[in-house]
Amino acid sequence: MGVSIEPIGIVHSPFGQKFGIPRQAGLAPSAEGRLELLPPWNSMDALDGLEGFSHLWLLFAFHANGAPARARVRPPRLGGQRRIGVFASRSPFRPNGLGLSAVVLRAIGPGPILHLGGVDVLDGTPVYDIKPYVPYADCLVEAQAGYATRPETPLSVRFDPEVERQLAEHEHGTSLRTLALEVLATDPRPAHERRQRDHSLRLYHCDLHWRVVDHCAVVFAIERR
Amino acid sequence: MGVSIEPIGIVHSPFGQKFGIPRQAGLAPSAEGRLELLPPWNSMDALDGLEGFSHLWLLFAFHANGAPARARVRPPRLGGQRRIGVFASRSPFRPNGLGLSAVVLRAIGPGPILHLGGVDVLDGTPVYDIKPYVPYADCLVEAQAGYATRPETPLSVRFDPEVERQLAEHEHGTSLRTLALEVLATDPRPAHERRQRDHSLRLYHCDLHWRVVDHCAVVFAIERR
Repeated sequence: MGVSIEPIGIVHSPFGQKFGIPRQAGLAPSAEGRLELLPPWNSMDALDGLEGFSHLWLLFAFHANGAPARARVRPPRLGGQRRIGVFASRSPFRPNGLGLSAVVLRAIGPGPILHLGGVDVLDGTPVYDIKPYVPYADCLVEAQAGYATRPETPLSVRFDPEVERQLAEHEHGTSLRTLALEVLATDPRPAHERRQRDHSLRLYHCDLHWRVVDHCAVVFAIERR
Repeated sequence: MGVSIEPIGIVHSPFGQKFGIPRQAGLAPSAEGRLELLPPWNSMDALDGLEGFSHLWLLFAFHANGAPARARVRPPRLGGQRRIGVFASRSPFRPNGLGLSAVVLRAIGPGPILHLGGVDVLDGTPVYDIKPYVPYADCLVEAQAGYATRPETPLSVRFDPEVERQLAEHEHGTSLRTLALEVLATDPRPAHERRQRDHSLRLYHCDLHWRVVDHCAVVFAIERR
């Protein structure tokens, strides 16, 4: 009963590396994505009526995973130590490697292209389906979560004065600054790697260098690549 | 970038035929399903921690579809006349034929089996992934829907006295009656087939014969198969 599936589109996102991708959709609302449909689905016909929906589901592949799926995983939410069943997690390392994200539909077009917000996928992610988000079926206000009851406590974020100056001069500095704030607030450090050291985060064509000092992510350098 | 995916489980449901399957998960809460995991994922390890969640996502195949996917579909919600884009619909006739349902997790086990509520899939449906429903990421209270803002107005349902008598004697009569009430209330008739005629609905091993009279679904006969 195995089936072969083909991408119907590709998402372009600010995230060129896995490190720093928000762990759920919506955590970084400024993370904009562009979904380009592929033949034979790259027609406005296939999107007709989607403009009435504010959000949509992406079914996509975690295509850059190297490791095979295992029955038990160590989610970052549990400190990276406790193992739980893969089907009790949203880990990217899972049977069939399929991901599911509810993202904001900001605009359609020109052409068969969707402009998205709150994306949490790697640049170049293949998409296998798009479905409208239907609140009466999808938004279960009575649902109870196990270990993942709410987003983690955000980090505060600070930019060194020299970085602020560089951002002010950057052509997309304002949106880059907002996105960096949102992403760093989610604390992208691996759970087993939370001692103080320098990290770098690639957003679009910039590398931001930062470290955590007293629960504050401090961006101390920025480089164009 | 095509990939091959293999089922990780099979859902057994009351719905042996496509006709009558609720058009979204949760519309018939009494529709119970049993998800049996398949090797190599049929271990309690893979489910460890899922017991803390009240709901889960099933990613499954619309495996009994004959027709090929088209760019435009005619959803029953729009009377079966207006066509919209396939990606603006939850139609089963879609590229890659993947379905997505949020269902109730009633119980786990004994063994690597999930007992589900509110299922909307055909008996024997292959499942490609199970993910916990994470409210903070999945329940978007601000989401706006296009044409599918709420469930359709339910039909009222009535059983003829002879049918009531047969249900009272049936070993699973009470649950069968409740399920029939929920399913018929959703008005499973195709949108283009709403003139008065007799229909039959198969639930478990029974065929219910019914017709709609003045916005009331009247069950006038029941047969064991």
